[in-house]
Amino acid sequence: MSAPLRRALSAAVVAVALLPLGCATSLVTHKEEERRLRASDDGTRPAPRWGLVIHGGAGVISRESLSPEREAAVRAALTQALEAGHAVLARGGPSVEAVSAALQVLEDSPYFNAGKGAVFTHEGKNELDAAIMNGRTREAGAVAGLRHVKNPITLARAVMEKSPHVMLVGEGAEVFAREQGVELVDEGYFRTEERWESLQRALEAEKQAGPPVPQTRGSAGGEDHKFGTVGAVALDQAGDLAAGTSTGGMTNKRFGRVGDSPIIGAGTYADKRCAVSATGHGEYFIRYTVARDICARVELLDLPLLESANQVVMEVLVEAGGEGGVIAMDAQGNVAMPFNSPGMYRGYMGPEGTPSVALFKAP
Amino acid sequence: MSAPLRRALSAAVVAVALLPLGCATSLVTHKEEERRLRASDDGTRPAPRWGLVIHGGAGVISRESLSPEREAAVRAALTQALEAGHAVLARGGPSVEAVSAALQVLEDSPYFNAGKGAVFTHEGKNELDAAIMNGRTREAGAVAGLRHVKNPITLARAVMEKSPHVMLVGEGAEVFAREQGVELVDEGYFRTEERWESLQRALEAEKQAGPPVPQTRGSAGGEDHKFGTVGAVALDQAGDLAAGTSTGGMTNKRFGRVGDSPIIGAGTYADKRCAVSATGHGEYFIRYTVARDICARVELLDLPLLESANQVVMEVLVEAGGEGGVIAMDAQGNVAMPFNSPGMYRGYMGPEGTPSVALFKAP
Repeated sequence: MSAPLRRALSAAVVAVALLPLGCATSLVTHKEEERRLRASDDGTRPAPRWGLVIHGGAGVISRESLSPEREAAVRAALTQALEAGHAVLARGGPSVEAVSAALQVLEDSPYFNAGKGAVFTHEGKNELDAAIMNGRTREAGAVAGLRHVKNPITLARAVMEKSPHVMLVGEGAEVFAREQGVELVDEGYFRTEERWESLQRALEAEKQAGPPVPQTRGSAGGEDHKFGTVGAVALDQAGDLAAGTSTGGMTNKRFGRVGDSPIIGAGTYADKRCAVSATGHGEYFIRYTVARDICARVELLDLPLLESANQVVMEVLVEAGGEGGVIAMDAQGNVAMPFNSPGMYRGYMGPEGTPSVALFKAP
Repeated sequence: MSAPLRRALSAAVVAVALLPLGCATSLVTHKEEERRLRASDDGTRPAPRWGLVIHGGAGVISRESLSPEREAAVRAALTQALEAGHAVLARGGPSVEAVSAALQVLEDSPYFNAGKGAVFTHEGKNELDAAIMNGRTREAGAVAGLRHVKNPITLARAVMEKSPHVMLVGEGAEVFAREQGVELVDEGYFRTEERWESLQRALEAEKQAGPPVPQTRGSAGGEDHKFGTVGAVALDQAGDLAAGTSTGGMTNKRFGRVGDSPIIGAGTYADKRCAVSATGHGEYFIRYTVARDICARVELLDLPLLESANQVVMEVLVEAGGEGGVIAMDAQGNVAMPFNSPGMYRGYMGPEGTPSVALFKAP
């Protein structure tokens, strides 16, 4: 397929895809997309449309399941995260810093399964994972199994920028945190009553069902069937992309289970043309190397970002039975946020400085 | 580029590439490759050429650095591993079992940095990682930070086949091992004097150099600059691929560092068309999602395996400064084993039943 033909097809895909995928607002309108595509065809390259996109988890998220107060609180936290990231980008700061700033807000909020408000393991602990990747340099940092690091994304960034390694896990990672002066907190800091009660209900359900049986493959886990992972993807004014993800994993998880968030190429990935953060049933996202696959289609097939993200999330993952969604940006500032679950907390903020947030599927 | 043109080019690449990459023997000759390609062009598909390929690490491996006794012992262990995997395949067994059987032999041998003979961490411990992936189902199992599991590849396989998870780390993973009846051993089992002395030399060098400074990015680590990770890739008679990797990581590693071996898509990956196991400077293999990138080029660009593996190992990784190599097979039984380091322990055994092993670059 020729590049112009592919681009033309892609514009059609944009128009069709925005509605069923329920993007937050008219993040990228058909007309605007067309204008940009035409500009590219002329050989001219418009200035990158810098901005950031965030998610706060995917799953069974419906208007009915959310009280108005809770909805307002979630929207406020997502907006605050967008504004924190946007402030970095607006002053010309790097995308890595914008991603980190946005994710710290979401980690500090009790409404998401990351940092404070993380879900509990089977043993009643919080075990936190995070990763960040710099698309320009392809440097990456990842941490897993943290129990005392207030902001896991901050430690992931320290691993990326101040160690020769990419991934540190468990107590060793916390030794590194101490050396780097990354803030540590008591285990109790992460606890919220809501998450504690979720664990109690999960344990009770397990007891009722008799001795623990292996979870069905394909089961999404967690009684409320929601993946509260948080993520951010940003494009800065210099045209550089970054992606980051932070999570508390699955309620009642056992055996030191690590999901896709800290796995580079699965839940988090960025290169010069494409950046992705995922949320969903992590095992599928690892097996299908979801974040890398989306960016591989952009890199190797020269597919438009939205088409590529849709292929992986709405076709490959759906066929495999993997529930969840992603947020993604390319180096032109195009945004994709497909999800195959009932809902996904998400938001976008671009150069015009208006935060837009959405929780449910578009009607 | 049209498919026939691409295939024709690829045949040329095969001929050129075999020599400088120093493949074990004439594993896939130019003529044979041509015959198969022509067969594919006719729309006929030859029966898959089942077999397995293994590696025992890459790095500074030269004739001068290896005593004749050591060379003989390494060759014998590689041959024994090939024969163990081959026996499974010859009786029609699955590729996952062949990979597991071959890797157990290498884990049990003291000559490789996996299982017995693993390198020591900064704290004088052995921390073992492994992963396995079934190309037909895309199921995967990965473990990291093990201290008591005799054969990490066996536990990785149990995670894949008997848990709903993909990745388990640290003590939690060993709790799962105990539940599954996977063999546990005392920490002392893994120790070899040679590895212990390597650590002492690394610690002494660090002391001489003053307080520990962050390792230079790009430094390969380990005084002997060798990555002793072991890996296997197999294609069974049913045409199904599998890949597995097992490692002790880097001498003097700290902070719970996890390398590429247990990261699906980095050091280990398999799908229906392509399977890869890597060895090298793990951080680069994670950042460049090496195993997945090779298979993505096969899947998305329809590139021949050898061309795809060469692009990633000899171009992308070389440009990035990432040292190491991979072994790879496709669903037709084509084999690639490019490495950009001075040497790579490697071997191949196909239906004809003759094990072939090589350690150095071809002259």
